[in-house]
Amino acid sequence: MTYTIQVKVMPLKELLDPQGKAVRGGLENIGIAGVQDVRIGKNVTLYIDSASEEEARQVAEEAAKKLLANPVMEYYEITV
Amino acid sequence: MTYTIQVKVMPLKELLDPQGKAVRGGLENIGIAGVQDVRIGKNVTLYIDSASEEEARQVAEEAAKKLLANPVMEYYEITV
Repeated sequence: MTYTIQVKVMPLKELLDPQGKAVRGGLENIGIAGVQDVRIGKNVTLYIDSASEEEARQVAEEAAKKLLANPVMEYYEITV
Repeated sequence: MTYTIQVKVMPLKELLDPQGKAVRGGLENIGIAGVQDVRIGKNVTLYIDSASEEEARQVAEEAAKKLLANPVMEYYEITV
């Protein structure tokens, strides 16, 4: 079966996110108020062929750890 | 109250996603098998000051429509 797994990769909370800051400024400029902060990361959708959901999640975990996220600057969350 | 809202911006399903294709190749190269396809988009976290969740969602919707997503190439999903 093919499982669809989402890997969300976001900048660590301790780090500045200049892209997010720029978007916050942009929102203000076009008149959208009330946005206190913006953080921008990646969303990776993996379509994994696997016998079980557990196995697919492990493949995604390995992919996130080895390729998708840089642990120095980013953390990730996996949802099936 | 400050609401945390996630806006997921992904390339439309009809379009090629060269970044995703590259990552799929990369996963294969480092020995992670079983990944049929990869799509890569953005994940934007908005921290919105608002009186109600409904109002915060509307601000996010407006932000997504006007700035975050390009409807020619991308679709978005909002989760509170």
